[in-house]
Amino acid sequence: MSAADARKARARTAEPRPVRLCLIGFGSVARAFCALLAQQERALADAHGMRVLVSAVGTRGGSLLAPDGLTAAAVLEAVGDAPAPPQAARPASELLRASGADVLVELTVMEHDFAPVSTGHVLEAFALGMDVLTANKGPIAWNWDRIAEAAKASGRRIRFESTVMDGLPVFSLLELTLPDCRLLGFEAVFNATSNSIIDAMGQGETFADALARMQAAGVAEADPANDVDGWDAAFKAAALANVAMGAGITPAAIARESLRDVAPERIAQARAAGMRLRLVTTVTRGTDGVVRGAVRAAELDVDHPLAALGGDSLGALLHTDLMADVFVAERNGLVPQTAYGVYADLLHLRRER
Amino acid sequence: MSAADARKARARTAEPRPVRLCLIGFGSVARAFCALLAQQERALADAHGMRVLVSAVGTRGGSLLAPDGLTAAAVLEAVGDAPAPPQAARPASELLRASGADVLVELTVMEHDFAPVSTGHVLEAFALGMDVLTANKGPIAWNWDRIAEAAKASGRRIRFESTVMDGLPVFSLLELTLPDCRLLGFEAVFNATSNSIIDAMGQGETFADALARMQAAGVAEADPANDVDGWDAAFKAAALANVAMGAGITPAAIARESLRDVAPERIAQARAAGMRLRLVTTVTRGTDGVVRGAVRAAELDVDHPLAALGGDSLGALLHTDLMADVFVAERNGLVPQTAYGVYADLLHLRRER
Repeated sequence: MSAADARKARARTAEPRPVRLCLIGFGSVARAFCALLAQQERALADAHGMRVLVSAVGTRGGSLLAPDGLTAAAVLEAVGDAPAPPQAARPASELLRASGADVLVELTVMEHDFAPVSTGHVLEAFALGMDVLTANKGPIAWNWDRIAEAAKASGRRIRFESTVMDGLPVFSLLELTLPDCRLLGFEAVFNATSNSIIDAMGQGETFADALARMQAAGVAEADPANDVDGWDAAFKAAALANVAMGAGITPAAIARESLRDVAPERIAQARAAGMRLRLVTTVTRGTDGVVRGAVRAAELDVDHPLAALGGDSLGALLHTDLMADVFVAERNGLVPQTAYGVYADLLHLRRER
Repeated sequence: MSAADARKARARTAEPRPVRLCLIGFGSVARAFCALLAQQERALADAHGMRVLVSAVGTRGGSLLAPDGLTAAAVLEAVGDAPAPPQAARPASELLRASGADVLVELTVMEHDFAPVSTGHVLEAFALGMDVLTANKGPIAWNWDRIAEAAKASGRRIRFESTVMDGLPVFSLLELTLPDCRLLGFEAVFNATSNSIIDAMGQGETFADALARMQAAGVAEADPANDVDGWDAAFKAAALANVAMGAGITPAAIARESLRDVAPERIAQARAAGMRLRLVTTVTRGTDGVVRGAVRAAELDVDHPLAALGGDSLGALLHTDLMADVFVAERNGLVPQTAYGVYADLLHLRRER
């Protein structure tokens, strides 16, 4: 009998164990995560022995506190199409404490400049004896060493697969499938919006028009700095480099080139020469042992694995010592895939406990 | 403390546990595997609490029996550059029994037609209470259902990461990093030799010249049927479809197109049209629930992820239900990467036990 079969057999005979979540942030990813929990309710019970309940939801506009726990479906029904949960907003620390949850699911929007609020949520959850799942790259990009230390000191766990490529396995790929491999460096396309803008400019649209169209469609963020100025990629680079390479860097240390400074002719010329322009993130460790990163527009030969990544694709070419170059990419990565990453992390947490 | 840290702390305080291997087949992959074991001896003890020893090596030309166990370095030294180990050849069943090993490492060459010999080794090992690691796709491609049943009945495990893409995680990717995801189908480039021949033909070399050159270099197999007639890819397709999709098919059921039948002009025309010709393996599940596969030469747009896979690259685009399309590929995959896949499987086995 495989380990999975044995787990399933145990799960079927025992009453599913309740796992209570406190959700901070309730935007599109949190809603998709709840929808996935609702859809997988039976699988969670049968295959994993879990009954996942939501004890609290907190946003700046409202909250929902139910220490006994609601099903994910009940939470979605209680909030409906409203921008925030129905009860008055509560401070996150009050909500965390009152929830009595086992796991904080931190899904607030990314903060620039040291991510103090979301990092505070994570540390407070550890102090309350909770594990943490997050799709928010801020804490991992800015404060990984501090967070890892706090997790260790409190005996808690944190998982964050969806911080880098929408739930595509990269942290779990390195941790679980490439044992004893060292990550030496990586090249990546970490921002799908830039891909789309570059391709639109290659078709003759102006930068401003392409950006405005994508903002109107809700694909690009209102503040374009994250997407087109390389901040999103720099956050992701710092997160991956800190966790998998012990880099100890922050997004501010990653050099960035803005798409605003890329002439449309450069895109057309690349295409005419059989190349593709991409906003490429490169992270290497120097002979001095220091890890450095850069986000730059680069012409790639079409036979380079990153060249094929268009619109809603992200990917990373991982340079390892024992397994040479491993390339992992997603196609059609959207909000449900980001939510899946959080869901997978919940299952990893369960396996570890 | 993370699970890995805790495991390491336990490993450090306890005496490393001996794990004894019986190696059947001692070609380039087995030798690279032994070299990797020797290189990682310290890491195996410190991080995993394992002292890996070789109790027996069997080939058709000679054997080595050492039930007390030799280090991998000692085995490499004992065999040296000789084609086979120094003792007289023994029947595999005798060697398995006499070895008293914990794990069979099956690394014989692929057999066509139901893989009776290697499948026999696997089943015999289970009967003797051994777990099995293999890079030999034969048993998995032809006899997966029977092997899975025998493993279950005997409480044994089998792992086989290196059967499909030289140690690149695909089985462990699906099993460990994509929990609850269903594999709906896949498109893959599973044979690097075909890539190289196609690219050489694109540069004007004839099929026969390219093949002869690669055979002389030891890259293509002596019998070109595996590489150019799609058999290698069909075996891999059956292995992945059987394990990850419950397909219950054999390589004989996979339709194949031979590179011999591809006109050189077709390759040049594809390139002129901004496409790449590749030997593409496609596996889908029909609305009737039946899984079907085909290995065919196909023109791919350069923006298709498989198009960028050249010479020694392999990759698969996995269609899943919850995580959309996940693409995984290797670059520069050679014998050491195949050996790494067996090594990783050994660590997975240790984790499961």
